[in-house]
Amino acid sequence: MAVREAEPIAVEEARRRCFEWASPREVVRVPLVEAVGCYLARGPELPEDVPPFDRSLKDGYAVRAADTAGASDGTPVSLIVIEEVAAGGWPTRTVEPGTAVRTMTGAPVAPGADAVVPLENVRLPEGSAGREGDRIELVIPARAGDEIQRRGDDLPKGSSPVGAGERLGPREAAVLATAGVLEVEVVRRLRVAVLSTGDELLSGPGPLRPGQIRNSNGPMLAAMMRMEGWDVRDLGQCSDRVESVVQAVRGALESGDVVVTTGAVSVGDYDVVPHAMERLGMKLLFQKVAIRPGKPMTVGVKGDRIWFALPGNPASTFVTAHLFLLPTLRKMAGARVWDALRTIAVLKGRPSEGPIPLTRYWRARVWLEAGRAVVDAGREQLSAAISSFLGANALVEVPPGEDPRVGEAVAVWWLDVPPAPIGY
Amino acid sequence: MAVREAEPIAVEEARRRCFEWASPREVVRVPLVEAVGCYLARGPELPEDVPPFDRSLKDGYAVRAADTAGASDGTPVSLIVIEEVAAGGWPTRTVEPGTAVRTMTGAPVAPGADAVVPLENVRLPEGSAGREGDRIELVIPARAGDEIQRRGDDLPKGSSPVGAGERLGPREAAVLATAGVLEVEVVRRLRVAVLSTGDELLSGPGPLRPGQIRNSNGPMLAAMMRMEGWDVRDLGQCSDRVESVVQAVRGALESGDVVVTTGAVSVGDYDVVPHAMERLGMKLLFQKVAIRPGKPMTVGVKGDRIWFALPGNPASTFVTAHLFLLPTLRKMAGARVWDALRTIAVLKGRPSEGPIPLTRYWRARVWLEAGRAVVDAGREQLSAAISSFLGANALVEVPPGEDPRVGEAVAVWWLDVPPAPIGY
Repeated sequence: MAVREAEPIAVEEARRRCFEWASPREVVRVPLVEAVGCYLARGPELPEDVPPFDRSLKDGYAVRAADTAGASDGTPVSLIVIEEVAAGGWPTRTVEPGTAVRTMTGAPVAPGADAVVPLENVRLPEGSAGREGDRIELVIPARAGDEIQRRGDDLPKGSSPVGAGERLGPREAAVLATAGVLEVEVVRRLRVAVLSTGDELLSGPGPLRPGQIRNSNGPMLAAMMRMEGWDVRDLGQCSDRVESVVQAVRGALESGDVVVTTGAVSVGDYDVVPHAMERLGMKLLFQKVAIRPGKPMTVGVKGDRIWFALPGNPASTFVTAHLFLLPTLRKMAGARVWDALRTIAVLKGRPSEGPIPLTRYWRARVWLEAGRAVVDAGREQLSAAISSFLGANALVEVPPGEDPRVGEAVAVWWLDVPPAPIGY
Repeated sequence: MAVREAEPIAVEEARRRCFEWASPREVVRVPLVEAVGCYLARGPELPEDVPPFDRSLKDGYAVRAADTAGASDGTPVSLIVIEEVAAGGWPTRTVEPGTAVRTMTGAPVAPGADAVVPLENVRLPEGSAGREGDRIELVIPARAGDEIQRRGDDLPKGSSPVGAGERLGPREAAVLATAGVLEVEVVRRLRVAVLSTGDELLSGPGPLRPGQIRNSNGPMLAAMMRMEGWDVRDLGQCSDRVESVVQAVRGALESGDVVVTTGAVSVGDYDVVPHAMERLGMKLLFQKVAIRPGKPMTVGVKGDRIWFALPGNPASTFVTAHLFLLPTLRKMAGARVWDALRTIAVLKGRPSEGPIPLTRYWRARVWLEAGRAVVDAGREQLSAAISSFLGANALVEVPPGEDPRVGEAVAVWWLDVPPAPIGY
């Protein structure tokens, strides 16, 4: 029973042990759109220049800037239009002195030209429609480079603007697609099994027997991890006896990367997780963390599989899932940045409780007031209070022994803000 | 060709017209976990009290507080343990004076008892294990209500803590599941078709023909809307001739709620959207918006279907998708709050360009510095620059004629922050 006597370790040390252990799963090559929500295993080298040719930024006329020197209302420069090029077309003529090529937005700029004059800056002489064979008049001098985006100016071939560990979202999809990257190497989606332990739980429908309560941790964890894009199997519940837990977790570990259980971890008469880990030959990463709620949080590993045994109290599950489970799993999924946004905020409300020698986490709501983060932790912080989840988009972190007052700055995890994508 | 002469309208007016038109799609009843990411059509009335019975918050002993009056180290109160109740169990005995029921965390509190004394506050006399038939000693008086969560205290039956229009995420799933709501009525997932127009585009793999560019808007939009949880069909591309666009959009409108096209909207020779909308019998909501980038943005509706014709320039697509498309679609998907977070932030960097009589939107990066929002819009803001998307998690909004300097406060849309969930 030595495992029962573990001393709680600091939250930073517990997180460090998880992150040190966690490594990305296998790399798969998939079409770009199927990779949405996954993390890049490698930052692809762009195979093409963007744009792939010198391109007009406006509907207008490709001209030689030198031709237009001195153009003014009184002394217009007259050019003859020798060709028309639409986006998708390709010029066949070269712009010689005295000529211009009508060039639409996105169309290639004809050789010989070094500027594009927008339609609205061009005057059409009597009888001219500004089309091939017509004359146009310029009344403002053009400068070399005007309204032209040079080949490779936006994204040069061979560069890697989106790095390994970035999450593939719409912006990354646009950047990669435009340079011809239509398949990417990403870390495959995690496979996670969720299991709630406890004879008191009812997971399915139907009336509660006396003494039973509904399983809320299973649906919460499943929803949380589905929103990350992972494959989540909700195994429902099992008895919190060692034998049942060992059997259920063994099966889940064989088919998945991660097993998340809730319950059966604390020091009561029927707590079984440390023993089950022993029976499964797992190495304990830690057994208790000096936090409230969530102190009996236990993590075990075996090979490349990990078992997060979260405490059964809903608030403990909520807090430990955000502090340990999600960031560790994001790292396993290949993320370069795995934590939610951490900042400081002015405390607007707090629960009535005194300091303790543990790191406290208050479920709270953070928002911006005139550009400044403020946070309200005034709701009931009871571990068993699920109502404290309503609107809780943040955790206030209170170090051991501290007891911040309303109006003071506190450390806050902003849970809804995704890990930062790309360095800017 | 009257449609071509439309005056641009203000961004607020254009958004108002979209939101006024948009109404939620049909309501479906689905299991809770399948509803993840959907918006609730109705806030369910909780069918059960949470907790469903008076419940112990600690491992300990259910006692009569009156019995413990005057308990101290010198004058302990001795009680006899008459029963043991685990979580999931149900007491069969009543706590009479001089008795206690051993009661584990989450277990029902036996009738007669009005307080729970935690294990750690109980002394065991010589030979007692504190189990049924043993005696225990209390050395601190208990107060009525100690460590008991009363039936319905957390969430009372009949209340509706999660309202219509809230997005179903992990917190909402926990709150509803715990009160026995295992199915919810949500607005069904949107069906969206994405179509890129332009003969210059290459959507699939293979080398570019001279003058062609890659389709990046399609993958970007598809990724954006997949991350919202909607059913997105990427129809690839079609020619930007009226006939092709009419045909492609007609088919897409029949099978989906929304068609999003890019390109073919501006005043060039080959622009066709207004004509196509006319041919399809659609009502124009607006044809131009006084913004940059994105001015030729056009929206048409017919019955309960909507066509967003976004400009083809990638930056225009990016900006208009965030300002018009996503919020309108979120409202159609049942959201109560459809916009991303809007706040003010201190401007850290800005592009070199002068004021214009349009509302400008700069792709930018927002973050928190010591709890205060700051934003950097120092990247190239060219409409055709896809590299400007890298790390752009925000849009800086600059009103017509204004030209904020570095160090000033500006309005910012924080694109990655989801619409606020529940009022707190």
